[in-house]
Parts: sequence; structure tokens; C-alpha cells
Amino acid sequence: MATPTTGSTPGSARSSTPGSARSSTSGTTSAPTIAQIAREVGVSVPTVSKVLNGRSDVAPATRSRVEEALERHQYRRRRPGTKHAGAGAVDLVFHQLGSPWAMEIIQGVEATLCEARTSLVLSELGGEHRPTRAWLDATLARPPLGVLLVASRLTDTQQHQLASRSIPFVVIDTDGEPPPDVPTVGSDNWTGGLAATRHLVELGHRRIAAISGPADMLCSRARIDGYRSALEAGGIAFDPALVDAGNFYVEPGYLAARRQLTLPDPPTAIFAGSDMQAFGVLKAVQELGLRVPDDVSIVGYDDLPLAQWTAPALTTVRQPLREMASAATRMLLALAAGTPPAMTRVNLGTDLIVRESTAPPRTAR
Amino acid sequence: MATPTTGSTPGSARSSTPGSARSSTSGTTSAPTIAQIAREVGVSVPTVSKVLNGRSDVAPATRSRVEEALERHQYRRRRPGTKHAGAGAVDLVFHQLGSPWAMEIIQGVEATLCEARTSLVLSELGGEHRPTRAWLDATLARPPLGVLLVASRLTDTQQHQLASRSIPFVVIDTDGEPPPDVPTVGSDNWTGGLAATRHLVELGHRRIAAISGPADMLCSRARIDGYRSALEAGGIAFDPALVDAGNFYVEPGYLAARRQLTLPDPPTAIFAGSDMQAFGVLKAVQELGLRVPDDVSIVGYDDLPLAQWTAPALTTVRQPLREMASAATRMLLALAAGTPPAMTRVNLGTDLIVRESTAPPRTAR
Repeated sequence: MATPTTGSTPGSARSSTPGSARSSTSGTTSAPTIAQIAREVGVSVPTVSKVLNGRSDVAPATRSRVEEALERHQYRRRRPGTKHAGAGAVDLVFHQLGSPWAMEIIQGVEATLCEARTSLVLSELGGEHRPTRAWLDATLARPPLGVLLVASRLTDTQQHQLASRSIPFVVIDTDGEPPPDVPTVGSDNWTGGLAATRHLVELGHRRIAAISGPADMLCSRARIDGYRSALEAGGIAFDPALVDAGNFYVEPGYLAARRQLTLPDPPTAIFAGSDMQAFGVLKAVQELGLRVPDDVSIVGYDDLPLAQWTAPALTTVRQPLREMASAATRMLLALAAGTPPAMTRVNLGTDLIVRESTAPPRTAR
Repeated sequence: MATPTTGSTPGSARSSTPGSARSSTSGTTSAPTIAQIAREVGVSVPTVSKVLNGRSDVAPATRSRVEEALERHQYRRRRPGTKHAGAGAVDLVFHQLGSPWAMEIIQGVEATLCEARTSLVLSELGGEHRPTRAWLDATLARPPLGVLLVASRLTDTQQHQLASRSIPFVVIDTDGEPPPDVPTVGSDNWTGGLAATRHLVELGHRRIAAISGPADMLCSRARIDGYRSALEAGGIAFDPALVDAGNFYVEPGYLAARRQLTLPDPPTAIFAGSDMQAFGVLKAVQELGLRVPDDVSIVGYDDLPLAQWTAPALTTVRQPLREMASAATRMLLALAAGTPPAMTRVNLGTDLIVRESTAPPRTAR
């Protein structure tokens, strides 16, 4: 039978809460039973159960029809064993592993799950920001206590498939603008971009370049908008020739800095979209025979553990990555336990960490 | 009932194979049943089953007695569902997460398990090289298809506890000398230390310092022995004043290089025990106003993705970390499937990757 619950989801006026599957469905009279779903679709009750349990021995066409009916009725199943939080695992899903950034997220999630005596199942989507059907099928077949998605998002159908099995999910550092009912934990990217750039403006820089992350990721756009806003506040015109974009790894930072620093009117400072990009900028500056911060100031973004170990040590915007991961994990565990957390859309603050890679430009000295 | 199997474990003459639980116990007559174990201990059959299933509702004293009897009889249980390899998860256990080194291992394991449609459960032992009782209890309660231990080892009792549940394990980059029946995958550390140092000797260096990893880890000792051997072959006396030890992270490399380079007769080259240590050496060299490789040559170890992005790019010894992780995972899956792999103690080769951080010493030019 479907499970009406008494909790309401803060921050959402909608009755459907895909990310918070066990805390919606107000009103019990319209909630259908498995038997009603089966009758409507014209299949047996065990067939509906099989679909709900992610079993593979259901014909694809039949499964689609059952899925549609479950979604249409916003069917919510009571999950057996929800009270034994330690019994299930939490899925942590990256679109891409590999960076020290991802390691920070892993450590934050692992530490929080360890305290909660809950296992961490780790997977990667091979660079895709959208989970595949195969991933979802495997997940539903297990099923986990809940899912943490990093910089990824589910389709509406996938959301409903998780919701119909009462598997909540939380997005860490969303890649786009998810619907308001999707629980997310991120950081304040616009303020980070603003603080980084204002620091450079206050040091006296007027030619300030920027390297953005992927244009299709919300956090990249927010940081660049913060950069533009700080320029504007400093009375500096935005020059698109001083902005490059690429992924958050080292090479795009290296290539962008090589291009920017060989312009006829090169920048005296570069705001990189990530510490990894900043490592690439450092290499480019040194290869060009220039010095940091004497010739070029650099600000990174993230404050990875390695940022303090570059020579010179990197000025950067600290994202509290482990705290973000931990907050998202606690939020997910609360949703899985049927106790909706007070907040389901959280951005943690960012801080400018001034080290040795920034100084006034030569012209201002 | 206990499960005698027909497979034998290559590379081991012993009848007990803790790491390869399903492939030993030759001779069926002495294998006890659960009922015999229960009778001997003086408990009920369900109690023995509970202990085998890792259930917590057994009094600690009773559990200990049952464990002892299971271990004494080298009890091996047929694991239900072993034929459905995709149904279980593989546990990947680090003594410590955090480094880019660990990320390489994670990616190797994840990719291989993804192909095998098997979930990856990730955990950390909080810096300890020996799993705790709590970790083992939680693992037995699940239980996984098998366990991959990174730079960690089980006690004899823990080995038998896993073996009695037919849960195989494989050690990646063992921290010490495990018994010959423990399956391991590592790399050829002695040859790596030899190649790194010989490269420096061939460039003309005579004062060559080294930074070791933790003294209690076998891989560290092997690399330093390779270093000593290359010095000896080059007719250079080993000078203990030129060797420091520390963990594999950045700071020990930084501190060691600061000390070594301010000696009355400083080295002209430093062989670091890890790329992370080498990053610290780079910072120390630059802080001291020296240049790489003009004043000091540096060789790292690991060939992490970041090694090519330092300025200058790092000469280093490549450990095939992802391949090691992948080989260990395949070995584990084979053991779990009851088909013992051809080799259970494997060291993969290492390669010297010459980049820009090494050159002849000034005196030799």
C-alpha cells in the first residue's frame, strides 16, 4: 500500500517531491494500491512488484507501462527496513572521478556515513552528467538507502522511478538549475567569484583575466558573474578577450594562461575557475619566464590540500567541500529516515584565502 | 554444510588459504557441519548461523566461542548466490584516503567492477593499517563478494573469520610481508628505486639524497634498497645523513629537502619516495632560491597525473596504479567465483619516466 506521511517538505510548495520520496503525497484517499495499478495496466500484482523491485525478468514494454502508471499515480511504496538505517548503503555517484576535488567529496561522505554505520557505494558515470538506464536499473535492483549525485542530475522519469521506490536523492554541486523540489547542497559560487576578483581589484589590478569552468555548469557561470560584478564595482570594463572556458582540470588553465599572457595587452592577474586550472596557470607563467606574483597574480578556486604546497602558495577561494559532502549526506539520511531536514536547498559560504600568489601589479608599485 | 572444493591454490603449499577461502580444505571427511559445531560449543544451530551471518543478536562470549570453533575446524561455508556475481559488492578498504594516489586505485577498481556489473563499497580505516573489530563485524553482516585491502593487512583471526564465510580478500600494495597464502598485487619497488637512482648516477651526480616512505612499509624499504644498490654499483658510498623518512604526503618531502639542501655538503639530486614528496621538494628548492634541474635534480615516484604539470615537469618512476588495482580486482572476482586465478602474488613492473626535473650536476658540466 502507498504511504501517506505526515511530514511536509520545507522549501517546496509542490505536492510531488522526487528527491524526498517519503515526505509527500498529502491525502490518502487517492493513493492507489499495487493491486489497483496492476488492474489498470492489465498485469498481475507480482509483475508490478517485480518492476518496483528492479527485477529484470519483466518484458520491457510491460515494464514501461507499469512505470508509466506508477508515475501517473505518483505511487509511493513503504520501504521495508527503513527504520534500520544501517542496513542499506548510500550511493555516491560522480559524473567523473579523478580529481583531488572528488577526493574531498568522497572523504566528507565517507566520514559521515562511517559515523552513521552506513556503507558507501561509489560509482562513476564515465563523464556523463546524466545517469544511464543501466545505472538506474542496477541501483533499483539493490536498492540503496538513498543516492548522492555529484554535479549530475536525473531526468524527470528517473526521479519518479526513484521516488516510486522511496529512494531519496540529494545533488551535490548541481550542474544546472534543478526543479525547486530537488534537494541540493552547493556553495556560494557567485560570492566566491566576487571575492576573488575584488581582491585583485583592491590590489590595483586593472587587466584581470578569468578562466571559467564548463559553460554548461551553473557553478562556472555564477563564478564568472561574480567576476564581472567585481570588475563593474571597480569601474573596469568587462573584456571578453580576457575570458577562457574549459573543464576544471589542469590543462585548460595552462592553455588559457599561455593565450592570455601572450596577448598584445596581457593581464597582470588571472582568476582561475579551480585550483587545478591555477596549477596549469602557474606552469604557463613559469614557462614564459614570468614570476608569480611579481609579474602575474593568480587566484585559484576550491582550496584543495595541494593549494598551500605550490611555490608560491596559492591564493584561492575556499569551498568547504568536505562540509558540503557531509551536509548532503546528513540531509539524505534524514530523508531516508522519513524525517525531512529543516533545509533541503543549501549553499555553504566560500572564503578568500590569501597566500603568496597575489600582489599589487608592477605598474601600481 | 561445509564445502570442500576441487580447486587448489597456486603458489601455496599450505592447506589453509585465508585469502582464497573457497579453494582449499582438501579432504571432505573432517569438514564439520554447523550442527557439529553447535554441539561442540553447546549452542543451538541457529546461534551458529547467526554468528556466520554476522548478526549482532548473539552474546559476545557465545560469539567468541563459536568463532573459535569455526576457526579451529577451518569451517568453510557454501556462500549462497556466489554464482550471481553481480549480486554482491566488493569492499575497497584504504588505511587512509585523501591522496591522488588513492584516487588512482579507486579508478582502477571502479572501472573493473563497472565492467563486471559489481558494486564498489568504499571505506577507510582512519589511518590504521589493521581493520578494527567493528569494521569486520559490519563487513561480515553484509557480506560482500570479497575485500580489497590497500596497504593494510588482516590479523590471522580476521583472515579466518572471512575465510569461514567464504569471503576472499586481496591486498593491494601490502604494507609488510604477508604470509605466502595471502593474494597480493603490488609493483616492483626495488627495481623502481634502482632505476631512479641509476638515472641520477648516470647523469653524473655523486651526492644523491633520498626521502623514504614510512619505515614500517615494505615498499619504502624496497625502494631505498634499490637506491643503495644503484649507489653501490656506481661506486658511491651510502651516506645515512642524506636519507630522511616520512609519510608519502607533501610535507615530509618539503621538510627533508629543506634539511638536506642546507647541509654543509648538500646533495645535487634528490630521489623522493612519492610524487607528493617530490612536490614538497620542488617547493623547498624554489624557496631556497635554487633552480630545478640547474641546481638540484629531482626524481619522484608514482607518476601521478599531476607529475607532468609541475614546473619543470617531474621525472618520476611510474607505478601502474590503475593496472595494479584492476589486476587485484580481477583476482578477487576470480577467487569469489571459485575459480582461483593463475597467479595470486603479482608485482607489476615500474618504469622510469624522464621529464624535465633531472639534468647533469653543475660540477659535471
